[in-house]
Amino acid sequence: MEHAVFTINNVWMMISIGLVFIMHLGFASLESGLTRSKNTINILFKNVMILAIGLSTYAFFGFSLMYPGEAFAGEYFGFKGFGLPLPNGGLTETYNMGYTFYTEFLFQAMFAATAATIVSGAVAERIKINSFLIFSLFYVGLIYPIVGMWHWGGGFLAAMNFHDFAGSTLVHSVGGWAALIAVILLGPRIGKYTADGIKPIFGHNVPLATLGVFLLWFGWFGFNGGSVLSADPATVSLVLVTTSLAAATGAVGAFFTSYIKFRSYDVTMILNGVLAGLVGITAGADVMSPNEAMIIGAISGGLCVLAISMIDRLKLDDPVGAISVHLVCGVFGTLAVGMFGDKAGMGQLWIQFKAIAIIAGFCCLTSFIILYTIKRTMGLRVTAREEIEGLDTHEHGMTAYPDFRLNEH
Amino acid sequence: MEHAVFTINNVWMMISIGLVFIMHLGFASLESGLTRSKNTINILFKNVMILAIGLSTYAFFGFSLMYPGEAFAGEYFGFKGFGLPLPNGGLTETYNMGYTFYTEFLFQAMFAATAATIVSGAVAERIKINSFLIFSLFYVGLIYPIVGMWHWGGGFLAAMNFHDFAGSTLVHSVGGWAALIAVILLGPRIGKYTADGIKPIFGHNVPLATLGVFLLWFGWFGFNGGSVLSADPATVSLVLVTTSLAAATGAVGAFFTSYIKFRSYDVTMILNGVLAGLVGITAGADVMSPNEAMIIGAISGGLCVLAISMIDRLKLDDPVGAISVHLVCGVFGTLAVGMFGDKAGMGQLWIQFKAIAIIAGFCCLTSFIILYTIKRTMGLRVTAREEIEGLDTHEHGMTAYPDFRLNEH
Amino acid sequence: MEHAVFTINNVWMMISIGLVFIMHLGFASLESGLTRSKNTINILFKNVMILAIGLSTYAFFGFSLMYPGEAFAGEYFGFKGFGLPLPNGGLTETYNMGYTFYTEFLFQAMFAATAATIVSGAVAERIKINSFLIFSLFYVGLIYPIVGMWHWGGGFLAAMNFHDFAGSTLVHSVGGWAALIAVILLGPRIGKYTADGIKPIFGHNVPLATLGVFLLWFGWFGFNGGSVLSADPATVSLVLVTTSLAAATGAVGAFFTSYIKFRSYDVTMILNGVLAGLVGITAGADVMSPNEAMIIGAISGGLCVLAISMIDRLKLDDPVGAISVHLVCGVFGTLAVGMFGDKAGMGQLWIQFKAIAIIAGFCCLTSFIILYTIKRTMGLRVTAREEIEGLDTHEHGMTAYPDFRLNEH
Repeated sequence: MEHAVFTINNVWMMISIGLVFIMHLGFASLESGLTRSKNTINILFKNVMILAIGLSTYAFFGFSLMYPGEAFAGEYFGFKGFGLPLPNGGLTETYNMGYTFYTEFLFQAMFAATAATIVSGAVAERIKINSFLIFSLFYVGLIYPIVGMWHWGGGFLAAMNFHDFAGSTLVHSVGGWAALIAVILLGPRIGKYTADGIKPIFGHNVPLATLGVFLLWFGWFGFNGGSVLSADPATVSLVLVTTSLAAATGAVGAFFTSYIKFRSYDVTMILNGVLAGLVGITAGADVMSPNEAMIIGAISGGLCVLAISMIDRLKLDDPVGAISVHLVCGVFGTLAVGMFGDKAGMGQLWIQFKAIAIIAGFCCLTSFIILYTIKRTMGLRVTAREEIEGLDTHEHGMTAYPDFRLNEH
Repeated sequence: MEHAVFTINNVWMMISIGLVFIMHLGFASLESGLTRSKNTINILFKNVMILAIGLSTYAFFGFSLMYPGEAFAGEYFGFKGFGLPLPNGGLTETYNMGYTFYTEFLFQAMFAATAATIVSGAVAERIKINSFLIFSLFYVGLIYPIVGMWHWGGGFLAAMNFHDFAGSTLVHSVGGWAALIAVILLGPRIGKYTADGIKPIFGHNVPLATLGVFLLWFGWFGFNGGSVLSADPATVSLVLVTTSLAAATGAVGAFFTSYIKFRSYDVTMILNGVLAGLVGITAGADVMSPNEAMIIGAISGGLCVLAISMIDRLKLDDPVGAISVHLVCGVFGTLAVGMFGDKAGMGQLWIQFKAIAIIAGFCCLTSFIILYTIKRTMGLRVTAREEIEGLDTHEHGMTAYPDFRLNEH
Repeated sequence: MEHAVFTINNVWMMISIGLVFIMHLGFASLESGLTRSKNTINILFKNVMILAIGLSTYAFFGFSLMYPGEAFAGEYFGFKGFGLPLPNGGLTETYNMGYTFYTEFLFQAMFAATAATIVSGAVAERIKINSFLIFSLFYVGLIYPIVGMWHWGGGFLAAMNFHDFAGSTLVHSVGGWAALIAVILLGPRIGKYTADGIKPIFGHNVPLATLGVFLLWFGWFGFNGGSVLSADPATVSLVLVTTSLAAATGAVGAFFTSYIKFRSYDVTMILNGVLAGLVGITAGADVMSPNEAMIIGAISGGLCVLAISMIDRLKLDDPVGAISVHLVCGVFGTLAVGMFGDKAGMGQLWIQFKAIAIIAGFCCLTSFIILYTIKRTMGLRVTAREEIEGLDTHEHGMTAYPDFRLNEH
């Protein structure tokens, strides 16, 4: 390979690393914006630590689990050993066509930490901080890389021609299934489902949530654009177009669904619509035409609004709509690869379905084991008093906005 | 063209897409920061929907209007047909020297949506949400691409040697003229111009507005840098230097003007000074030396402060200073191409003036037609009660900061 | 050099310019988030003006002082003349291997302004705005470039084999020493050190501070990544990995230190831990293995928590922890080059120590002269009444959050 092309491929991947990194800020902003100010410190603390723990564990063993390479042990599990190799091996440019070994590591490491961040939003305002950090350690360090290996690391899903371009399933629904299990095990926030019906709990800072969504869209340019694994002009530019158009029509789809069904101009619905469109296109961003991307985005946006309402009626309390966005639209986006675009067909649809089902089973089981063990030992949920008065004062001894006068609630 | 150079050009353009995208977050943050908290949801809603509608309509017909290409029908109008072509045509790398067809589309699409965003700030806190969205649909979908075609799409302004590098006129004043018309048709906010004189209405969140300005400056690296349409090192690096120095001296010019004239250290003035410098350099960022860029920036910054004060005395209520920044400095920057730099000369100045006048006429006329039609049919302005109590509770049924206790006003 | 490789190198440097630019937003957000709402306008004003003044003065003379080039006058001082050269000289691609003359200027200019920003945080909530701006003018315009020339401009520190990759010493401790002198000359904020002991003064907006830290980390990809001065895949990707892993373990180190020593889950500690890790790795980001970077990050994170506590006990009032992060960890990171990685050895450690001591002496002396002169002439500190009521109403005549009801304090 020509040196100049290698260098430019590597630059694009490094840019993508920066963009995926900024998604962690996006998630932190979105989650804290959509919840109450009494739990803001807690959410920020969680989100910084998830990233710190995620990068550290991925360096220690996650990367070796997900990309076992020559030490590959089988179709379902492999391991290359602890720690990152030293520069003399890793810095050679011949690692592959598109980037160096270290670029690969960091791109994958930034991805890995998102799986726990998705869960974070669903369990907000009631989970114990230590319990959540320990869950993250196992889920990001072990479960995510094992599932990732099945497809991206050359395991059995790759062999069966499953297509999940940038992770509608491998990232978003991996996070989404754990979010679902966690929400069931934790139970709803106090005051959410009362004898008088479902009480909405509004987020305390909508500009912060909006900032989060814009940053997530921005970051998705690297999440999907970097998943091309090179700067190939044709593919990357198609992927950026399908990604952006799906986000745009995700908002439009959510707008109309929300207006028709609820006569509402709820901004959080169109924000979740943007994310729904992004999650929905992620599995097939490389095999859709712009028009197909717009259809997938619009469906995802509408689906997300309906799912938020349905999940609420099931009394599953998901403060930020993480299950609707990441799980429901992640599953839809993965199936959409069999319904639209270059790979469409009943055969592919069946492959997509099987992979979703296998991963659903594995993630639900493992997240249940981890979370249930934590629940039985150190406990998952803060006390009622801590929850009512806020996690910030109890777990962190500080508040996010000490200068401002707050409403009681 | 060599494959590696094509690839790097395309990467730079894709980066620029991301940067121009982030300007939408910048505008949303700036506009909501500079207005009152009772209208924040409304502003965020508008800004997300402008981008969603802008990208969707640009894919449907805007891009075909602006870049009709071979289907070009004349000097003033052309159209290539609805929708984006499928990959087999668009993905070939031979589209042009610098980037793929899809890269071109997305870069231009991100630009297009800014025109409506500029208007959004000027009409904030009193326009009906549906009326604004319909205006945006027409202005971004139709008017902006038609004007853009006259110059960037190969129309009559290109033929007469008009120079507007990245859109001081084609983007900023296109938005600015519509903002002016809209402000006149809407009238001022209640309580702004009283018998006791002009009452300042302060923005509710200055850190948010500051964030917006920094993000706009950041985005301008792509807005101007990407308008080179390649990664050519000499030109792009000059453009980044002229852009940044004009922004810096824009702040300095606004600082001194504001201090000398009003003895004030008003942070919103230096923030608008930064934007004024950026808008002012945009027409000639590629033909100015760094020293000339610093002069243009300083003049723009000073001009903006004076314009804000003058426009206020004319009782044109522009909550964020959009007309001063985008229209006044857009016009000045376009004329500056005839006064400074490589193209300076009376001949060029006259060309610049003519183009400004033609576009002014067209934009004022068309925006008046659209806005006046809306005013006569569905109405432009919310009721006095809605305005006083806030658009958020009336149009959206929610507030941006439910946890915080607010002052009455 | 091949045209394509030159172009890609230049693109990477331009991206790094954008990333270092965004650090200024990061610093502004962090500093305003960690202080009280009554001084927010003042902090935002300072941070915008630092950047504007910094870029302007660097164009006028700073760059010529730091990189005198052929006009170089000696080992300790040089000067190439006022202003930036015109395009005909600067735009040739032969300036050096990695980028154009203008790219070099802008990258260095964005760096320069950070030195004053570091000081800004330490002197927050009590310094006079004019006094601070004049200090910034001299410190960024003169002192920073002179010190920078000693190493990066080819002066005596370069000759003695000092290794400071991206500026743990040349940027961070240059800012840090001035911060220390300024804090001593200014004295603590009213109410901080009372007869009853040390009273914590909480920041008013922790999400804003968190945003700042994420943006600083993001910006550091360009601060360190761009300091490679080319897009060389092996080196840049190593640098991004060492930088990110040090940031991650910085948070982990701060977490454990803070928990073990204070039983606290203080989010500001882990935020400062991230920055500590980043500052600590900056001197040696190119010569450390990932494992060594993780160790350096973890030590820096722990050190920072201990330093914050110690500096507070010394009654040095540093509202944002700037001295602990930038000075203490800057010194540690510089020494770490002699202790870990490719350059480790007693000889190198001694060189690192000497360079730190020389720069400490020069920066303390010059910042003392500037600050003491200001103190004796126009005064450094606002009046007690201004400080208690807030700098925003007194110096700026406005408040950052006029819609919100605030607590008295």
